[in-house]
Amino acid sequence: MMTTLRNHIAEIASFSDQEFEYISSHFHHKKMKKNQFLLQAGQQKVNKYFVLNGILKSYYIDKNDKEHIIQFAQPDWWITDYNAFFNNKEVTINVDCITDCELLYISNQDLEKLSAEFHKMEHFFRVKSNAGYVASQLRILTMLNLTAMERFNHFISLYPNLIQSIPKYLIASYIGVSREMLSRLSKSVTNHTK
Amino acid sequence: MMTTLRNHIAEIASFSDQEFEYISSHFHHKKMKKNQFLLQAGQQKVNKYFVLNGILKSYYIDKNDKEHIIQFAQPDWWITDYNAFFNNKEVTINVDCITDCELLYISNQDLEKLSAEFHKMEHFFRVKSNAGYVASQLRILTMLNLTAMERFNHFISLYPNLIQSIPKYLIASYIGVSREMLSRLSKSVTNHTK
Repeated sequence: MMTTLRNHIAEIASFSDQEFEYISSHFHHKKMKKNQFLLQAGQQKVNKYFVLNGILKSYYIDKNDKEHIIQFAQPDWWITDYNAFFNNKEVTINVDCITDCELLYISNQDLEKLSAEFHKMEHFFRVKSNAGYVASQLRILTMLNLTAMERFNHFISLYPNLIQSIPKYLIASYIGVSREMLSRLSKSVTNHTK
Repeated sequence: MMTTLRNHIAEIASFSDQEFEYISSHFHHKKMKKNQFLLQAGQQKVNKYFVLNGILKSYYIDKNDKEHIIQFAQPDWWITDYNAFFNNKEVTINVDCITDCELLYISNQDLEKLSAEFHKMEHFFRVKSNAGYVASQLRILTMLNLTAMERFNHFISLYPNLIQSIPKYLIASYIGVSREMLSRLSKSVTNHTK
């Protein structure tokens, strides 16, 4: 499982066996079952999670108990409540396992320690933060202005493997359409690509 | 003007006079008039801008020519199209000066160069990316679920100085309400704090 992390980091920064052994000693392993929650609004302590296997969703529950999907996470992605993680705030979102999941996680303290000890780790985490920032900005733009069909296409480009593997109502919630509308969008795309 | 940048960086990382002189040589100065645009959708080259003076807005124009405000920027803040900047993509948003502005800017190439040359600069830019990522996630949450009054309060907490200095219709656009509704929200807050 540490090989997956090593390959992931090596896309941006390479480390000797000895360096990586030290770095990986700051990560911990966690196995979770489908429908278990990883983070829950109100909890105080939060880590940053790297997905080895499985699919997760982060979402917000509003006052009317309506669930708003923020993002999905799949293997090789990172997920957490970033405000809680970086600013030591109380968690305000929820993260659940949509399937059985296997994760590695690191505390904020250890992430900062590794970043201070290795310029290359600081670089790695900066690149990851930039990517998260960009994804987040693009999510704002999709929410602001895209048509349902464009949001559906954006979802497919972002999560090409998820369309088959997660329940349709979650995709509908992410895109912000009814399940009937999602079904019409899916058929329309299928017809176009025939 | 470089003193402002130095003080801003020093909140996170400190540099010797000689180091800072070298770092500041990668920044360039720009003065702009009210209503001039800094970035326009479609342009190819983009820098990252640090605000010395003035207020700017970044926004997206949809197919119906409706303007959607993404963020405002005020002194000591950074602004750019992050997707275009980090991924060398075409610019998709617009950034205009709401008032006369004075800015420092750095190219992506020079930002990466400084980050590679100084571990402390890599750290500085990582912290800034984290902050941007968090702000962006909070913007998503405000869009997803807050009431108009909560979005108004969020605006005031984020931009305490802007309520007096920018046109009301821009605030209404950021919050996603009509100008009449904004006026009612403002009065309601004023009455509560009397």
